[in-house]
Amino acid sequence: MRIEIICTGDEVLTGKIVNTNFSYMSQKLEDVGLSVHWGTTVGDDRESLLAAFQLASQRADAVIVNGGLGPTVDDLSQEIAAQAAGVELVLNEEWLTTMEAFFTKRSRVMPPNNRKQAMLPSTAEIIDNPIGTACGFALDIGRARFFFTPGVPRELRRMLEEQVIPRLLARSGAPTTIFLKRFHSYGIGESHADALLAGIEALVPDGSVKLGFRAHYPQLETKLVVRGADMEEVRHKLEPVQAEVRQRLGNFILGEDDQTLEGVVLAELTREGATLALVETFTSGQIAARFGHLPGAEHVLRAGITVRDRTALHKTLDLSQIQLAGDLSEETTAAVAQAARLHTGATHALAVLIELDDGPDRIDFGGTIWLAIATAEDTAVRRSRILGGREWVRLGAVELGLDCLRRFLQHLPVVERIDFEKT
Amino acid sequence: MRIEIICTGDEVLTGKIVNTNFSYMSQKLEDVGLSVHWGTTVGDDRESLLAAFQLASQRADAVIVNGGLGPTVDDLSQEIAAQAAGVELVLNEEWLTTMEAFFTKRSRVMPPNNRKQAMLPSTAEIIDNPIGTACGFALDIGRARFFFTPGVPRELRRMLEEQVIPRLLARSGAPTTIFLKRFHSYGIGESHADALLAGIEALVPDGSVKLGFRAHYPQLETKLVVRGADMEEVRHKLEPVQAEVRQRLGNFILGEDDQTLEGVVLAELTREGATLALVETFTSGQIAARFGHLPGAEHVLRAGITVRDRTALHKTLDLSQIQLAGDLSEETTAAVAQAARLHTGATHALAVLIELDDGPDRIDFGGTIWLAIATAEDTAVRRSRILGGREWVRLGAVELGLDCLRRFLQHLPVVERIDFEKT
Repeated sequence: MRIEIICTGDEVLTGKIVNTNFSYMSQKLEDVGLSVHWGTTVGDDRESLLAAFQLASQRADAVIVNGGLGPTVDDLSQEIAAQAAGVELVLNEEWLTTMEAFFTKRSRVMPPNNRKQAMLPSTAEIIDNPIGTACGFALDIGRARFFFTPGVPRELRRMLEEQVIPRLLARSGAPTTIFLKRFHSYGIGESHADALLAGIEALVPDGSVKLGFRAHYPQLETKLVVRGADMEEVRHKLEPVQAEVRQRLGNFILGEDDQTLEGVVLAELTREGATLALVETFTSGQIAARFGHLPGAEHVLRAGITVRDRTALHKTLDLSQIQLAGDLSEETTAAVAQAARLHTGATHALAVLIELDDGPDRIDFGGTIWLAIATAEDTAVRRSRILGGREWVRLGAVELGLDCLRRFLQHLPVVERIDFEKT
Repeated sequence: MRIEIICTGDEVLTGKIVNTNFSYMSQKLEDVGLSVHWGTTVGDDRESLLAAFQLASQRADAVIVNGGLGPTVDDLSQEIAAQAAGVELVLNEEWLTTMEAFFTKRSRVMPPNNRKQAMLPSTAEIIDNPIGTACGFALDIGRARFFFTPGVPRELRRMLEEQVIPRLLARSGAPTTIFLKRFHSYGIGESHADALLAGIEALVPDGSVKLGFRAHYPQLETKLVVRGADMEEVRHKLEPVQAEVRQRLGNFILGEDDQTLEGVVLAELTREGATLALVETFTSGQIAARFGHLPGAEHVLRAGITVRDRTALHKTLDLSQIQLAGDLSEETTAAVAQAARLHTGATHALAVLIELDDGPDRIDFGGTIWLAIATAEDTAVRRSRILGGREWVRLGAVELGLDCLRRFLQHLPVVERIDFEKT
């Protein structure tokens, strides 16, 4: 099935906003085994919209149009859809009632110009929008089925996942049940993961399991798309494959599906009734910022301490017994973590101290990362070297610090070679 | 002049990467008074590329194509450009030499497949790429001039600004010199700024100054595009208008052109030879993270302290004399800032303490922000209330904290009503 996406709106066309709706839609379709063949971006302009609809209607089987369903005069999608399909715009009483209820529920009176949002092409099938006043709809233009969706991201997301994708899958004749399983890892690059997982699709010989990746440094997402007649068949197919992925990626898997690294660390600490102190230098609060704002973090994060001048550690943590002049070592890093723990009264402390290379920022600028995790019983230390510019070193150090804490809390080795470090 | 953009590549089409190149290019063209009329996204596919080039060549005067100039087999832009223009691909000795020098300079031997990057349509005009091996080029297809640019963002940026835009401006017949002046502000919304700046374009009666905005919460960017015969004329036109913008937006302007809020704060502190201590609660290191990593911050940021449980402040800052139970007040916030200053030995301290509303996150979830700035001579305090969900409160508090510090350092009022706060 040939699918196209048309994104509309002057804000997208002029670059005022980055078009994340396009990548979101395209990715979601990929996740269920559908592919986008062509993308078009046009402004709030009658002539361009009509031309875009007509061209897509000649090429595609299905077209998703995003934006232009709002109440203002420059929202033109319904009008041009009717024109392209050669039908009238008519008032849809059903959607008018839905909108009025929407406003009543919020103790507001519907402004007159919202009435425009209930004017739909006469042949349109309504696609529900449970969280907004923009009415989604579908209709045929030429040989293609067009799906009109709102530009507001959260409204689009809900409508795409709950309404549009099931209709597309039904039209594509694919098995109805498709499931996406995701694994998040830190420390292995995409090509390495690809090699580690070689042959994994073949565990299900009928070709209904597809492996994919999405790299967003420093993390890698490994995806399994599984198709089956129903959820039971999908689960049956997925089980041996996901067990194999877990075994092959092993300690590098930091979470699955909707889990995040910071969320996993917070959950482990919460489960142990533990509290945390953080000491950061060049990452300057980035580690604290990753999970300090999460709900529940107020019971766990005892203190985060950021110093850029290492001698300031003495003053902040009362480290009079530690010699911090000169280069860092395993001993001083461990001592800093222990001191932070004692000073704040936390059960756990993570210290991530960085020695930056000298000179201006450049593509091979690097830093040496010294990190230590301390508890009353134990201290774990890790040294790593990351190259790639100031920003790259900073991103890597934040992730390495959080991931080593995750490993420590999960009783996995804190020191295990990662693809991003130079030795 | 009618301009189109064609973005190529499977990674963009499938949503693996968000297409920031499109918004970047479109915005840069808007900034010099040119407009993009149509955007197309296609994958690394011969048939789609040819169709996209042909369609654009019938509609547009100029087309920018992005991507597909690399050395691998799925980089097809040169080949399809030649096909669409009806000319041969020929080896360009000039670019081959440039590439070989590029590798020699980096003490590497050019891999054989890079030779493909010097195969250009016979009618192509070379567009230099001083920082990569992908050769930009221009040629006519149908009625349109096509400009082929690399997908690597930093290579694209340099080529667009230095090579493509001047050529487009020359073709458009617009006055050759166009200048973009930018003002960054925090605390006023787009419609408010628009009202404050009403009539400002008319200060230059020939219509050669254009006002525009770009909102990226919490900041707003105000843009003046000025056209003239040469830079002297541009400066002459800009001067009274920029003076008026500065006066009308006043204290809300936090920086101009390439300045950032965190950069301005760091520069002010550095100029005074000052040092800084930060205390954060719900923003949990976000304020420190905004400027702690900047070059030179190591001489200024004495310590950043993040606590989520307010009683932990006692332990970390030795606040035994301050009563922190119960609600926050101006007095306790000021005392926390002073204690942080004394404890760390910094000349300046900023404390941003937040009382979050109770209950789950929702669209009208809010927080009360208490912030204080302390020096040996002075203490400034500000209370603000921000609604809009946990993330919104957090973003607002970070910006408000940094902006109040900027105002304090610039001897401007720290307390001035902003559009984003509820009272």
